[in-house]
Formats: sequence, C-alpha cells, structure tokens
Amino acid sequence: MVPEGKLLSVLMLVISCVGFGQTGKLLVLPMDGSHWIGVKALAEEMAQRGHDVVVVIPEVSILLGPSKNCTTKAFSVPYTKDLIENMMNNDLMILNNEQTFLETTIFLLNAISNYNNILKVTGESLFYNQELMSYLRGKQFDALLTDPAWPIGPILGEHLEVPSVYMLRGLPCGLDFKVTACPAPPSFVPRIFTHYSDRMTFPQRTINILVSLVEPLLCKFVCSILDELATRFLQREVTIAEIFKNASVWLTRLDYTFEYPRPLMPNMVMIGGIHCAVRNALPQELETFVNKSGDHGFVVFTLGSMVSQIPEEKAQLFLEAFRQIPQRVLWRYTGPTPANLPQNVKLMKWLPQNDLLGHPKARAFMTHGGTHGLYEGICNGVPMVMMPLFGDQGDNVQRMVTRGVGEVLNIHYTTSEEVVWALNKVINDTSYKEKIQKLSAIHKDRPIEPLDLAVHWTEFVMRHKGAEHLRPAAHNLNWFQYHSLDVIGLLLSVVAIVIAATVKSCTFCFRKCCRRKTQKKKKE
Amino acid sequence: MVPEGKLLSVLMLVISCVGFGQTGKLLVLPMDGSHWIGVKALAEEMAQRGHDVVVVIPEVSILLGPSKNCTTKAFSVPYTKDLIENMMNNDLMILNNEQTFLETTIFLLNAISNYNNILKVTGESLFYNQELMSYLRGKQFDALLTDPAWPIGPILGEHLEVPSVYMLRGLPCGLDFKVTACPAPPSFVPRIFTHYSDRMTFPQRTINILVSLVEPLLCKFVCSILDELATRFLQREVTIAEIFKNASVWLTRLDYTFEYPRPLMPNMVMIGGIHCAVRNALPQELETFVNKSGDHGFVVFTLGSMVSQIPEEKAQLFLEAFRQIPQRVLWRYTGPTPANLPQNVKLMKWLPQNDLLGHPKARAFMTHGGTHGLYEGICNGVPMVMMPLFGDQGDNVQRMVTRGVGEVLNIHYTTSEEVVWALNKVINDTSYKEKIQKLSAIHKDRPIEPLDLAVHWTEFVMRHKGAEHLRPAAHNLNWFQYHSLDVIGLLLSVVAIVIAATVKSCTFCFRKCCRRKTQKKKKE
Repeated sequence: MVPEGKLLSVLMLVISCVGFGQTGKLLVLPMDGSHWIGVKALAEEMAQRGHDVVVVIPEVSILLGPSKNCTTKAFSVPYTKDLIENMMNNDLMILNNEQTFLETTIFLLNAISNYNNILKVTGESLFYNQELMSYLRGKQFDALLTDPAWPIGPILGEHLEVPSVYMLRGLPCGLDFKVTACPAPPSFVPRIFTHYSDRMTFPQRTINILVSLVEPLLCKFVCSILDELATRFLQREVTIAEIFKNASVWLTRLDYTFEYPRPLMPNMVMIGGIHCAVRNALPQELETFVNKSGDHGFVVFTLGSMVSQIPEEKAQLFLEAFRQIPQRVLWRYTGPTPANLPQNVKLMKWLPQNDLLGHPKARAFMTHGGTHGLYEGICNGVPMVMMPLFGDQGDNVQRMVTRGVGEVLNIHYTTSEEVVWALNKVINDTSYKEKIQKLSAIHKDRPIEPLDLAVHWTEFVMRHKGAEHLRPAAHNLNWFQYHSLDVIGLLLSVVAIVIAATVKSCTFCFRKCCRRKTQKKKKE
Repeated sequence: MVPEGKLLSVLMLVISCVGFGQTGKLLVLPMDGSHWIGVKALAEEMAQRGHDVVVVIPEVSILLGPSKNCTTKAFSVPYTKDLIENMMNNDLMILNNEQTFLETTIFLLNAISNYNNILKVTGESLFYNQELMSYLRGKQFDALLTDPAWPIGPILGEHLEVPSVYMLRGLPCGLDFKVTACPAPPSFVPRIFTHYSDRMTFPQRTINILVSLVEPLLCKFVCSILDELATRFLQREVTIAEIFKNASVWLTRLDYTFEYPRPLMPNMVMIGGIHCAVRNALPQELETFVNKSGDHGFVVFTLGSMVSQIPEEKAQLFLEAFRQIPQRVLWRYTGPTPANLPQNVKLMKWLPQNDLLGHPKARAFMTHGGTHGLYEGICNGVPMVMMPLFGDQGDNVQRMVTRGVGEVLNIHYTTSEEVVWALNKVINDTSYKEKIQKLSAIHKDRPIEPLDLAVHWTEFVMRHKGAEHLRPAAHNLNWFQYHSLDVIGLLLSVVAIVIAATVKSCTFCFRKCCRRKTQKKKKE
C-alpha cells in the first residue's frame, strides 16, 4: 500500500518545477525578418505571464530588437548592417523586368548561398562566444522557443539539452513532413513551389509526385552546410534532420481558412493568425488621413519587410494606377519620394499594417503574399490584390485565389491598367468582400485563441520536460520500414513464389499428361 | 464600392441563424449502452447553454432515457426489453471456460447478426413512424449529433439534410480511416483487434498490413445490411460509407495518454475523457463504506454495462480473491447475492464509477477495459487490473499495459491467486501509481476541456451549416487516385519503356558492331 503523503509527492514531482500556475525559464532564439513577428508575440506573452524569458539575437539584424518584459542578450557578429542591407538591396533585382531566366536562377542560388553563409557565420559567433554560452548553460532553461528555418536555435537546444518548441510556416523540400513523420499524400497535398491547389489534374498530380520524389535530394543539398556546422559544434556525427526530429512541439502558422485540409501529427499545433490579436490604436496622423477617405475608403500597400524599395520605373507604374482610383492609398515605401506623388497616396517607412486593415474603411490590401500579411487580410476580412515575389509566396497567393478572396498580378509584367482593374474588381465586385468576410468569420470562430494555444503548449513542454506522449513510434523506423516497403517486398516475393510454383507444377503435370497421351498414341 | 451597411448585413448572413452567443436546434440520435455516456454529457451541456435539444430514442433500451433540459422523443419498436435482456444474458456464455473456439466464433457471429437485426428493425420503426418523422422534418434542425456505430442517426441526418456531428471511439474494419480519408500507415498504426502496440516487430507489421488489406472486404460484409436499409429509406442507391463521408465533424474519444500518436484529419476532434468532468458527491452510504476502508483503501470492480452478471463459479473465484486482500471492494453485480459474501465486499446494482475512482482512497480499478472506464482510470490516476471481454477491449488494455499502469488477466482462465497477485502488484508496486499519476497529469493538462471543445465544434457546425473548410479534397478521389496508383503506373510504364528502348538500341548497336567485325574477319 502506498501512503497518501508519498502519492502527493509523486504528483508534485510529476508536475515538476514548472507546475500549473508556476513560472519557468524560457530561452528564445528567433529568426530575423517577418519570422520574428509570431515568435515575438509569444515571447512577450510568456514574459507577461511571469516567465523568465531570455531572447538571444545577433547584434546586427533587420527587425530583431528588444521585446517587452524579456531579457535580450545580443552577441557580436563579424558583419555590419550595411552588408545585410546590401544583400537586401539585391531584392531590387527581382523586380526588374529585364532579367532572363538564367539571371533569376543565378540570383536565387546567390541568395541561398548568402543566406547559408550568414547563418554559418552567425552560428559560429554564438556557439564560440564563451561568455554568452556559459551564461546560457548556467541558466538551466526549461524550454527553447525557436524557428527551424534558422537552425542555429535547434542546434543550440541540442547542445543545452533543452526540450524545444518550434514555430514555423513550413520548411523547404518537405523537410517538415519528413522529420515529423507526417503523411502528406501527393494526391491531395500540393508540394511547395508547385503553386497547385488541393484539387489537381492528372498531369499536376504526376508533377507533384515527381517533385516529392526529388525533394529528399534537394534536402541533402540545402542542409549539407548545416549538417557540417551541427557536427562541428556538437562534436558528434549528426544531421540537422535528426536534430529537428527531437522537437517536442511544432507551432505551425497554419489555419484551414488558409491551408488546404491535410493530415497533421499530434505534436503539430495550428497557430495561424497568432499575431492578429496584437492590436493598437492608429497614430492620430494616420487616423485623420484614413478618415478623410470618405465612403471610398483606403488601400494598404506593402511588399513585406524584405522589399522596402522598388525601381523608380515600377514605382511610377503604381503611382499612375493610384492616380486613377478614388481610394486613398497607404504605401510602405522607404526609397526617395518619387516626383508627382498623387494627392491620394501617402508613403510611409513603416506601416501599422494589422491596425490599418482592422479599420472599417480598409477596402483592399495590396500584398506580396507573405503568410503574416495574408492572415491579417483574412483576420480583418479585407479583399486582396497579390503580387508574389519569391519563396512560398506563389503558393500562398494561390490558396487565396482558390477561395475567391483576391486577384493575383505578375509584378514583373503588370501594367497600371491591370493594377487599376484588379483594385476595382476586388473593391467593387461584392463577391470578394462576401467571401473574405465568411473566411474571416470561420477563421475567428475557434475554441481558443492561437496565442493562448501557443502559450499552453510552450508551458506544457516546460512543465513536463517535453511532450513525449505525442512522439509517434514512426521515429524508430527508417523510410523503408515507414512505407512498409520491406513487408510489401516480402509479400510480393511470396506471391511470386506461389505463382511460379503453381505455373511450374501445372506445366509439369501438363507435360506428363501430354507425354503419356503421345506414348499411348505411339503405342496404338 | 460596397456601402458599409451592406457589408454588415453580409456578415450577419454569414454568421447565419446560430450566431455567436445565439442558440439553435440540435437533434440527437444516440446509441444505447456505454456509447450513451459521452453523447449524453454533450447533449445536456448543449441544452444547459440554451439550445433546443431533441433526443430521439427507442422506447425499449438498456441505458437510454430522458436527459436533463432536453426534449426526449421515444418511438415504439416491435420488441420488448426482455428480448434485449435475453440477448445480454448470452454474455454470460463468454465468461464460460468450457467454450471451444468454434462455440466462441458462432457466438460472435450470432451477436453481430442479432445487433444488425435490432438495428434494422429499430431503423424501420423510426423511419416509417410518420408522425415522428413529420415532427422532425418540421423542426428544421441546425445540426445532428449522433454515433456512427449506430448508423440510424447518419441515415436520418442524410434524409433531413442536416449537417452532422459524429461522436465515436472508432469503427470496425478501419471504416473511420477510410471515410475520413485519414492516412493510417500500417507500419506504426496498429489495426483494431490485433492487440499490437505502435512499436511492432517485422512479423507483427506483416500481419498488420495483411489485416489492413482484408479490412475493406470485412467492411463490405458488415455494412451490406445497412447499405440496403439506407438505399430503401433514402430511395436512391447509396452506401453507408458514402453517408459517413458527409459528416462535418468527428468527435473522437481519443487522447494521446490512451491512443498511440498517429495522423489525424482536420475534422477529427479529440475529446477523450469528455465525461470525466461530470462529477457528483458520493451517496452517504457509499462515503461511509469507503471511508471505513482505512489506509488500505478500496478497489472498484465492474465489467461494464454489457455484462452485469457472471457465472456463480466465476463469482466465487473473485470472492475468494477479495477475501485475501486488506482492501474493501465495491462490485457492480446484478445477479443473486452469492453465499459467503466476505465482509470487505459490497455488491451494488449500479456504481457511481467516476465519483468512486476520484475518491482519495481508491487504490485499484478492476475493469473489462471499455474506453469510458479506462479514461476514468487515467483521469483519476488509479492503477488498473484489466480483463478484456470482447470488441476493442483487447486493444484498449494493451495500450494501458505498454504504459505500465495496469496488469491484464485472461478472464476465461484466471484464478483467485492470479487476481490477488495482480491486485497486490498494482496497489503495492509504486511504479504503477507513479506512472498513472503522470499520465493523469498529462491527460488533464490541456488547453481546453474536452466537453467545451465538443460544444464548440457542435455549435460551429450549427452556426456555419457544416465545416466545409475542413473537408479534404481527397473525398473527390477514388482509392486508386488517393494512393496515386494511376500516376505510379504511368511512371513505371515510362521507366519500363525507356529501359526496354535502351536495351533494344544497345542490343541493335552491339549486333551491328559484331556483324561488321565478323564480316571483316571473314574478309581477312
């Protein structure tokens, strides 16, 4: 018999140091750019709830910076902000009509190479910063919140032996499906960069399967530099995919008003639209500007944090379009003010995008199709004109088009007339507004807010030192076993042997019979 | 430009008649037996929240009856309670050691046949009850809550054209995977009745695949009588599987403290342990009995609602065991009181099981391994001695054994000594209590209570007339397309043609070369 006192202590042990209502220590290693938005919202909420949150960032970055109530630890890196800004300015290139396919390919390969180099150098700057590393080791964190698209976090988590919570939109080459052991039947789960919907024709399904067959090879190519970094720092042979498999919970920026319905694994938690809840009043100047737009309302225009400035010629094209519409336009634009700026256009270096889209006079949202922006569009029920630039944006905008809540333009070849046509269409054809309002109502009709859900699962991982009960047994199988290819091979062999034996026996019997008959005939 | 007033009306239209905070009309068609527990909890909670809930039940049943704040509509059936009770008494048979394999098989086939006949007769009694049907048609319900294991509900839902919410544990022969288009890789998702865990050996994986290959045939056999009923009543050629595919939301009695981690589809909502929250104080008499058990505490013993009475010989075996333990025992037992009832045993026709297991002096739970009972064991953190009888119970208890929270006995061949051994083991070996407490802590550490989750999704379906955004495109594919067999066939053909062409060309070239050389040699 177990005395009740002992049972109580067992229970206390289980709930461990981060019990219900108690607070713990969370390490945050975010990625720069728009990826920071969701992580920041969660980190600040965790700090708000009394947890000791330490955010580790490089001294040089585009958007990263201190966050409310968190301790920020910046580490020095051997590059300057100019270098990143120069890299960013290359983005201008992709808005240039004159590029050939070869030039675009070279540009993309260059971009990946630059990204990987920055990643490697930043990782080395952190991992070999003895003072900071010894501080981090000493803190004995309960969990790590990070972004697998910036794999320095996962490698650090592995080194500190801290259970990890990942926040992400998705990983290239289907790596997120692979490392979570999540089935993604290519018959209705379109692969990244294909721009397909979940309703594919036979040729599309064929290409989708071919892409899913090529993905593992691409993964090997993309991850090799990271595998080397992880192996060197952790001082054991390890791949980045193996590290990713150890993540306790994956907070994915999905929602079925955006993503097509597909299977998910138990440790994948959908938090699409996590940042929409973060709202502030508009600054007085902006409030006045949008209120003066009258019944026509206003348009919000931004191409995301990665592209702030566009070629003069392209800018003139948009201005020419805006001159022809009755709406006012708020444009996130950091370049020099173009000549002949129309009266109805206001350029701003930074836009409170979500707050503007939440304004009742917001009529349309011109966006490049990043997930954060699209969720803000859905959340606030504003129809969209989308101009995808790179990465997953082509896929993202396709999802919105299939739902009839926006129009897509090709930013490389669009004209003023086309921009005017698209804006007039999404603003004046009520079906766009009706559909996005319906999508918005569904998106917001959920049992729990995504931010609260993210907080719950982060605290869960802190309380229980991981989420072992959500880990599928599939992680103990290799890909051959996972797809039951060994069993199928055995069964096919058995069938083949049985067929062969049957045929052999029948042939043998048949020959025997024939021989007897022939002999009989001969005798006769 | 759309005027704001119009937009508001569009929004109101979207939220439709069951807006946030508004109430609607819910039709409930429950299944008898333990399946009623979860459905009843949800129906009563919906009524409590102000919805107009109508529960339709046959006049004759075992457990079904009026539920708080709901309107109950009973329809007459051409059988008596005696018939069902006689069928139930057959359960005694399966506790008899003397049965041969043939007898058991005949018994099971008989049970399925009886079940299907009762189902058919009950369906006919409802569908051709003109008065009740015209009442149900007139009510214009917003949604139907039902149990697919009792397919009268889904057929009625199809007739009334009402979006459906299903509550279930699982369906035989993998039908639930099939109709939800949910991947269930046989390499780590054990099939029903195999009693395998998610970590299978190669031979187990082979059998698991074979079972999954046979399942569709079994489905055809089990469903044929239901297909006939549905086709006759709906007056169009339809199968029960096609009807199931239309369900908006599947409330599954799963939880990963019980089930092994596996993929789920977006419209599958986990509500395992939904009924544990329903709690009442113990009646005074019971409270006194269990409090007098001292430090030793007490054991709860029940074989579920389907088996209330067991053979005298078997009863004596248990009593002999209970005589040897220091704990008091509460036993749900409806037969005549056996001779020599030990002082520490109390027989009761009905037990407040969940309330008893929640008592701090509960030391062990002897159960047949039904899901409701197991969730109550997990929820209250009480180690278990399990004796599976039939159905999914063999699989259920296996899940508990792999987690080290209980022991399994074979009820057909167990002895008093074994029962004493098992009880002493789970009570005195602290590892069982530690593990079930840990499981309990994880089970209860969730972002939202399962009952609230079930209410949310039922209300969601009422508000939005279904949950179309969660419906996977896989429903538009046949099984051949779903598994991409057409594309794989094409690709293999292309590969075969390329190989054949290459071999042919090589052979041709080789021959040409050889011939030239031979001719040359001949000339020489």
